[in-house]
Amino acid sequence: YKTFHNKGAEVGTVNGLAVMGANSGMAEYTGIVMPIVAEITPSQTKGHGSVFATGKLGDIAKEAVQNVSAVFKKISGKDLSDLDIHIQFIGTYEGVEGDSASVSIATAVISAIEEIPIKQNLAMTGSLSVRGNVLPVGGVTAKVEAAIDAGLDEVIVPASNFGDIILDQKYTDKIKIIPVSTIEEVLDEALEKSDEKKLLFERIAELLKPPSTISPSKKGRTGTSAA
Amino acid sequence: YKTFHNKGAEVGTVNGLAVMGANSGMAEYTGIVMPIVAEITPSQTKGHGSVFATGKLGDIAKEAVQNVSAVFKKISGKDLSDLDIHIQFIGTYEGVEGDSASVSIATAVISAIEEIPIKQNLAMTGSLSVRGNVLPVGGVTAKVEAAIDAGLDEVIVPASNFGDIILDQKYTDKIKIIPVSTIEEVLDEALEKSDEKKLLFERIAELLKPPSTISPSKKGRTGTSAA
Amino acid sequence: YKTFHNKGAEVGTVNGLAVMGANSGMAEYTGIVMPIVAEITPSQTKGHGSVFATGKLGDIAKEAVQNVSAVFKKISGKDLSDLDIHIQFIGTYEGVEGDSASVSIATAVISAIEEIPIKQNLAMTGSLSVRGNVLPVGGVTAKVEAAIDAGLDEVIVPASNFGDIILDQKYTDKIKIIPVSTIEEVLDEALEKSDEKKLLFERIAELLKPPSTISPSKKGRTGTSAA
Amino acid sequence: YKTFHNKGAEVGTVNGLAVMGANSGMAEYTGIVMPIVAEITPSQTKGHGSVFATGKLGDIAKEAVQNVSAVFKKISGKDLSDLDIHIQFIGTYEGVEGDSASVSIATAVISAIEEIPIKQNLAMTGSLSVRGNVLPVGGVTAKVEAAIDAGLDEVIVPASNFGDIILDQKYTDKIKIIPVSTIEEVLDEALEKSDEKKLLFERIAELLKPPSTISPSKKGRTGTSAA
Amino acid sequence: YKTFHNKGAEVGTVNGLAVMGANSGMAEYTGIVMPIVAEITPSQTKGHGSVFATGKLGDIAKEAVQNVSAVFKKISGKDLSDLDIHIQFIGTYEGVEGDSASVSIATAVISAIEEIPIKQNLAMTGSLSVRGNVLPVGGVTAKVEAAIDAGLDEVIVPASNFGDIILDQKYTDKIKIIPVSTIEEVLDEALEKSDEKKLLFERIAELLKPPSTISPSKKGRTGTSAA
Amino acid sequence: YKTFHNKGAEVGTVNGLAVMGANSGMAEYTGIVMPIVAEITPSQTKGHGSVFATGKLGDIAKEAVQNVSAVFKKISGKDLSDLDIHIQFIGTYEGVEGDSASVSIATAVISAIEEIPIKQNLAMTGSLSVRGNVLPVGGVTAKVEAAIDAGLDEVIVPASNFGDIILDQKYTDKIKIIPVSTIEEVLDEALEKSDEKKLLFERIAELLKPPSTISPSKKGRTGTSAA
Ligand SMILES: [Ca+2]
Ligand SMILES: [Ca+2]
Ligand SMILES: [Ca+2]
Ligand SMILES: [Ca+2]
Ligand SMILES: [Ca+2]
Ligand SMILES: [Ca+2]
Ligand SMILES: [Ca+2]
Ligand SMILES: [Ca+2]
Ligand SMILES: [Ca+2]
Ligand SMILES: [Ca+2]
Ligand SMILES: [Ca+2]
Ligand SMILES: [Ca+2]
Repeated sequence: YKTFHNKGAEVGTVNGLAVMGANSGMAEYTGIVMPIVAEITPSQTKGHGSVFATGKLGDIAKEAVQNVSAVFKKISGKDLSDLDIHIQFIGTYEGVEGDSASVSIATAVISAIEEIPIKQNLAMTGSLSVRGNVLPVGGVTAKVEAAIDAGLDEVIVPASNFGDIILDQKYTDKIKIIPVSTIEEVLDEALEKSDEKKLLFERIAELLKPPSTISPSKKGRTGTSAA
Repeated sequence: YKTFHNKGAEVGTVNGLAVMGANSGMAEYTGIVMPIVAEITPSQTKGHGSVFATGKLGDIAKEAVQNVSAVFKKISGKDLSDLDIHIQFIGTYEGVEGDSASVSIATAVISAIEEIPIKQNLAMTGSLSVRGNVLPVGGVTAKVEAAIDAGLDEVIVPASNFGDIILDQKYTDKIKIIPVSTIEEVLDEALEKSDEKKLLFERIAELLKPPSTISPSKKGRTGTSAA
Repeated sequence: YKTFHNKGAEVGTVNGLAVMGANSGMAEYTGIVMPIVAEITPSQTKGHGSVFATGKLGDIAKEAVQNVSAVFKKISGKDLSDLDIHIQFIGTYEGVEGDSASVSIATAVISAIEEIPIKQNLAMTGSLSVRGNVLPVGGVTAKVEAAIDAGLDEVIVPASNFGDIILDQKYTDKIKIIPVSTIEEVLDEALEKSDEKKLLFERIAELLKPPSTISPSKKGRTGTSAA
Repeated sequence: YKTFHNKGAEVGTVNGLAVMGANSGMAEYTGIVMPIVAEITPSQTKGHGSVFATGKLGDIAKEAVQNVSAVFKKISGKDLSDLDIHIQFIGTYEGVEGDSASVSIATAVISAIEEIPIKQNLAMTGSLSVRGNVLPVGGVTAKVEAAIDAGLDEVIVPASNFGDIILDQKYTDKIKIIPVSTIEEVLDEALEKSDEKKLLFERIAELLKPPSTISPSKKGRTGTSAA
Repeated sequence: YKTFHNKGAEVGTVNGLAVMGANSGMAEYTGIVMPIVAEITPSQTKGHGSVFATGKLGDIAKEAVQNVSAVFKKISGKDLSDLDIHIQFIGTYEGVEGDSASVSIATAVISAIEEIPIKQNLAMTGSLSVRGNVLPVGGVTAKVEAAIDAGLDEVIVPASNFGDIILDQKYTDKIKIIPVSTIEEVLDEALEKSDEKKLLFERIAELLKPPSTISPSKKGRTGTSAA
Repeated sequence: YKTFHNKGAEVGTVNGLAVMGANSGMAEYTGIVMPIVAEITPSQTKGHGSVFATGKLGDIAKEAVQNVSAVFKKISGKDLSDLDIHIQFIGTYEGVEGDSASVSIATAVISAIEEIPIKQNLAMTGSLSVRGNVLPVGGVTAKVEAAIDAGLDEVIVPASNFGDIILDQKYTDKIKIIPVSTIEEVLDEALEKSDEKKLLFERIAELLKPPSTISPSKKGRTGTSAA
């Protein structure tokens, strides 16, 4: 059963990427598209919002959801103490581990909160710091190949992983690879243009305004840089 | 003891479908009718609603209840912070696992909240995304046969499972099989006509109104499609 | 030590029935009278009522208490967010399992809330759905015989278990056996006549008023019927 | 170290009785005096009172504390949502199990709430129902002998255990044994005379006023009677 | 690294005493100075104060913190529902067990709440009842010797342990040993003179005022007396 | 992948220092730079702030976070019941144990709360008491060498560890080593000059004002001093 789309746009639905066999050491990874769906609802407790995440998440995956919540609580234009947030990994009956779905979770939730559709011809992978910097992940080559096999047009990867991608000849030039360093760059690539998107980025710009004392040669937020 | 009806209509009571021996690998499944009953009450804590689910649910089944709660919290016409929701799997003393009862839970709870009776000559099976899309399940042939054996007239199955149903000749044309892609389609088939049902669907239509930027060729909500 | 009465009336005290050796397979059951006592108090937290149940309850017994709470929260004439509810199984130092005490718990708690005395010359057994239907239990013959040995005059059993009762000749016609299908029937048999009881049943009648669309040939609430 | 008094009066301090070797089957019990101390304080959470019990309590002992809380929450003349209640078993470093300290806990807490001193020349043992009936316990003979060895003048025991007491000749007529059936009788024996005690019993009398429909030949509250 | 002082005065800092090898049966104990530090802060939840204790506390030590909280909640001149209380055992990476630090915890916390400095040339050991009576502990000789080795001038011990102290000749008359029976005596010895201390003792005196009915020959609070 | 900077300034981001092989006994330690990132967001519950810490923290590390929270709750210029605090150890997929990151956590969180950038050419190590005193840690030599290898200019160490640092000749005079005794000294070294920093230190000075009764020869706060 195919549980994702490869065209059009959907609110709250992201084509994440995962690898199978990640725990078997030197063996080559196999990538798969792993959809992540988010929904927001009125909270069941007055003044208390909850975050629920399903799909048999392992310890690191649960901590990743917690880290990602820092990002969407910071960015959100709504009062999250009035909302429950539901995050669902589709089809992970054997469980899911790791933090490489962090950018996918953040994008799905922010889309659901702001009601901005996400491009479905695009997949993404990447870890996140609580301050919104994109951090490197494993298995990027296998993930990019899985996105190509799925007929997708674009794939977002951490800038720090860009050099890790070594595609077989048959995969060369088959997909647009987008390296990113911050969640803002992810959202800019993944969200469809709309008035809601414009408002979101105005709010983010306000949050990122650097303190007056920061050295002018530094950006307000910096990604993980290669040594 | 027969613990379900096969005619008439009941508030908060759904004929779910389950398979036995699902954990024994290649062996053929045996289907059974598994009633699910829901009730709502004033909450025991001011401003805090709870969801209780009994029947010795396994981890995936508990997560399914959590996912389904996103659906009924979104759709509900009542303030769920004032209500407790009780969900009971009848007769599952050995426990119950899996997410294929998701559509049944959603239907039972929404019926209980809205006080709209459910047709008892109908059974259903199907998983759900937090955004209300019906997802595929296992054992559909055995489940449809169990519905026929129980003397039921209609059975709701995920559209993505429609091709999986291969009935023995003695079961052919014995029941109306209804493929569905969204919880709205499930509710439309399962709930008895009434003023309350009309109001429910007006509310749902309002929620599903697609954002102005979505491509006109896409429906606001799309099911899992075959590759 | 005899820990129950077999005459008179008590608020919040029910003669439940249990079987010993229920886990030993084909062996014949031995029934016993197992008193259940309930009390209500002002809650210890403003706006939050709790339900406490003691007696080393097993998992199914704990879920039964949760299911029963749906029934008394629905029926209660008092605001349960201001009250704590205490339920005590007397003398079960080795623990208690199963859901066959559900009708007893419901009756004890409703008696305590409404301050309506329960007949002590009566015992009962039966499971409950969250919507108040009485469901079948095991060991009914042994339980009825235990009620007779205890000198009781009446015993309430699930209507769906009525055919299971096969008494030894020495027990024939020694007790009035009352088959029931709903918690309302249980309460009608067990609670002593009083103004409070009259008010309780007026409130229940209001709750059970069927929606206008339900087919006229169906009762608003229906029990488990034999196939 | 002697950790209790055998004369005078103390608020919140009761001479409980326990047996050692209770888990070693047929062996003869050895009784000891086990002091129980209670204190009340302003609660640490606005509108939420807690009950804390220390001394490495086993599961049955914890449930006993929960049952006893029904009794003091019902009787209390203060709003317990503003108070934290601390209960301490003195010197039970190896843990304590069972419910025979229930009357002691109830008496210590009610004394602390109402600030009424407890007679220290008296010890007690007894289990309790949530409605305040005294239930039988084990090891009463050993407990009574321990109270005598400790130089105490009076010992409270469950009325249903009165027949179990078989004292060695050297213990005969050395202590006043007081059989009780309800917590009111316990409090009447154990609390020192005072204006506060008079007010407490006026409040209890109000609570116990039987419903008008109860048969006149029955007391409002009845203890466990021998068969 | 020496992690304590032996002169001057500090708010919220107490020189506790512990023994090593306490679990090795008859072997001689070795005493050490174990500093305990307390701090209070605005609570993180409106209207809800928490108590945090770190240092890998064992079960008895955690219960001791709970018992001690009864003492400082009773005595506190501030509304503890607005404050979080942090208690830290310094340097107990291998964990800490037992209740002999109870007087130290109580003193550190009360000092931090009231902002009254504690004498650092003094160490202490002692258990506590929830009503503030000092209870006996083990290893007092080793603890007193450790205080002497640390260059301290005074050591507080439970009055009931006074007779247990048998010092080697080289330790004789090297430290002032202060036997105590109540937390008030501990505070009187350990807290530096100040206006805040005077106010604290006025408040305590008010709390301890005995009820009018108590026998005049008894103090309002009595310690553990030798038999 | 290098996950830290060695120049510029960042809000909420600290270069912590850790040692690997710390559990392997006498073996020489290897130091690494371990970035710690903090973010604050509106809290998800009205009136209730939470602290989240990720990176698979061990028991001692979790207690260290709790101790550090005493420091930032005390110092904070914002109402922390309205904020959630997220703390992330970067790259610790195998887990992290110990309390030597305490100064790093405190600095990252206070920077995030006050929006004061932290110097990125600086690393730090040190434990903390709940009253803000810096306590000694292990592995300081290896940590200082790791800071040098990372191209950093300054390293903060506990004053009580200063004497433990024995650098190989190739590391001599390659970095500025800053011994500290209190969190105020850490913040003074690590935070960039700004108006916000000035306000922070005015607030801290107010908090540290010693009570009038303290002996004039003692500072209001004293570090761990060598014996
Ligand atoms: Ca991924
Ligand atoms: Ca930044
Ligand atoms: Ca099903
Ligand atoms: Ca959709
Ligand atoms: Ca029963
Ligand atoms: Ca019904
Ligand atoms: Ca006892
Ligand atoms: Ca009664
Ligand atoms: Ca100590
Ligand atoms: Ca006293
Ligand atoms: Ca460190
Ligand atoms: Ca200080």
